[in-house]
Amino acid sequence: MSVVTKVVLDAMGGDHSPGEMVFGAVNAVKEKEDLFVYIVGPQKVLEEELGKYEYAKEKIEIVDAPDVITCHDAPVNAIRTMKNSSMVIGLKMVKEGKADGFVSPGNSGAILVGGQVLVGRMKGIERAPLAPLVPNKNGVSLLIDCGANVDARASHLVQFAQMGSIYMEHVIGVKNPRVAIVNIGAEEEKGNALVKETFPLLKECKDINFIGSIEARDFPYGAADVVVTEAFVGNVMLKLSEGLASMLMASIKEAMTSTPVSTIGAAMVKPQLKKTLKTFDATEYGGAPLLGLNGLVVKIHGSATNKEVKNALFQVETFKKQEINNKIKEYLLSETAE
Amino acid sequence: MSVVTKVVLDAMGGDHSPGEMVFGAVNAVKEKEDLFVYIVGPQKVLEEELGKYEYAKEKIEIVDAPDVITCHDAPVNAIRTMKNSSMVIGLKMVKEGKADGFVSPGNSGAILVGGQVLVGRMKGIERAPLAPLVPNKNGVSLLIDCGANVDARASHLVQFAQMGSIYMEHVIGVKNPRVAIVNIGAEEEKGNALVKETFPLLKECKDINFIGSIEARDFPYGAADVVVTEAFVGNVMLKLSEGLASMLMASIKEAMTSTPVSTIGAAMVKPQLKKTLKTFDATEYGGAPLLGLNGLVVKIHGSATNKEVKNALFQVETFKKQEINNKIKEYLLSETAE
Repeated sequence: MSVVTKVVLDAMGGDHSPGEMVFGAVNAVKEKEDLFVYIVGPQKVLEEELGKYEYAKEKIEIVDAPDVITCHDAPVNAIRTMKNSSMVIGLKMVKEGKADGFVSPGNSGAILVGGQVLVGRMKGIERAPLAPLVPNKNGVSLLIDCGANVDARASHLVQFAQMGSIYMEHVIGVKNPRVAIVNIGAEEEKGNALVKETFPLLKECKDINFIGSIEARDFPYGAADVVVTEAFVGNVMLKLSEGLASMLMASIKEAMTSTPVSTIGAAMVKPQLKKTLKTFDATEYGGAPLLGLNGLVVKIHGSATNKEVKNALFQVETFKKQEINNKIKEYLLSETAE
Repeated sequence: MSVVTKVVLDAMGGDHSPGEMVFGAVNAVKEKEDLFVYIVGPQKVLEEELGKYEYAKEKIEIVDAPDVITCHDAPVNAIRTMKNSSMVIGLKMVKEGKADGFVSPGNSGAILVGGQVLVGRMKGIERAPLAPLVPNKNGVSLLIDCGANVDARASHLVQFAQMGSIYMEHVIGVKNPRVAIVNIGAEEEKGNALVKETFPLLKECKDINFIGSIEARDFPYGAADVVVTEAFVGNVMLKLSEGLASMLMASIKEAMTSTPVSTIGAAMVKPQLKKTLKTFDATEYGGAPLLGLNGLVVKIHGSATNKEVKNALFQVETFKKQEINNKIKEYLLSETAE
């Protein structure tokens, strides 16, 4: 008999909640045999949404949660006090072993805090990094860490590199992933204090394919599969990538449709352009995993629609099937043994 | 009688050295009455290049320098030992008061070291930031610092904000420039230790228009005129912006010319697209100033062509005419007086 993966989906807190969340869950259980989804949110609202679709009733269950943590709520306080929110109820289900993972489009800070406090870090893991998959010219890179762990230490970055490498290899399927550290030059002696301290430690790691420093300009070209950096820099890289790409696309669209002739030209290039832009679509990958916890927590975009929801649910399934946390445990044991 | 601005132009070390450097200098002295340029490099080579053009001979003088610091030379060592290089000879001329500023397309690290060691910091300035002008959707922002000052302190960032504000107002002509600090959230309590320490200090500055935190995603939209951050993050932002923009442009071009129909469409949108892309052309602004030194040092792109050279020479002229260093001195005095 095959193993069933149980995922908790926080249906609330996103721009398209709960409609697209529910639709994504329905599509996911239709495509994957061994997937079971708990959808958390206000019972009545979810019943109404689910009522719109045909699906195998035994594969989706509603868990009632009357409250919602919004993006305006202060993370620590929200996790501590909003016991009846979909996020707190959902995260606790992972903690209690009722589910393998948790997916949410909600308040990022609250997901980070809740993941660490409610689900909890694996024994031996010092910090839980948020590691979005960022599309590049030739595929996708894992940018680790973009979370709330500012002012990280070298030992944290080494764990990030290890966990990121395991994730890229076994969940995303990149063989022997190239691991690099973000730096302001390619030479080993370059960098700030943290990078200079971390670089030799990464070089010593036997179980990762460390290729050295990567400059930010090579990141969009996919110069590495696992891109290690502390959270402040990672967050800046992620948001700058998103902001710059959307600004450039908007400007190009504006330019292309600014005269009658260019508007006709725009229609003629559109199909090819769309195909190319699709390769940079982050929603194909289904969100950013928060690694090193007792279960997988995946943060999807606030603007996520059903496709990203579905892919995030699949990500949890692969995570479970590939026994990622066991692989991380093995690495931790091998570290202790040394 | 008007004041003549004397600029030293390092003709060597760039991808298009010395041809485009010399051409840029010739164009500059043709356009500006009060500009005098010392071109530094191997005498014979420069004589030959200059021989190609008609220009007022009394406005350009060759300074012989047989050696060149290349991008492969280690900065500190090169500045210390390569006394006959165009860079060392040129920087020393600023130090000795023979010229008001120095422009070079050469080794960035060597320019940063040479600027600080040979030209020297102004009394009271703790660090000299490299502050490139980065085009955005609505104009241009000064990103300060992108230099070699890693692991900066809060007091450094406060000086960067002040110098950057003076530069944007009086050299670039942005009235009452908006100053912001790069952060991973808009709230004051967010950020790493450095940002948390710097934020209240910037808030207290009376002579700048501090608007708070800026997230990296808003940087391409021109959410602030002076964007303050420590050098590691600034360098990452600068290089990521360059890398991502060039990768996206290449991908779009590839897509547009991938079928016969799209190729015709591409030709129809090209004029409008070119016009838009020109607004993102960093060479319009003429390079990155290194501020806080006894004279202006401007780093231009290694790939700089004559237009960027000319604009960088003009930048030195405005710097001199606007007496920027006197304005920085006034600010330093007002700080001491408090």
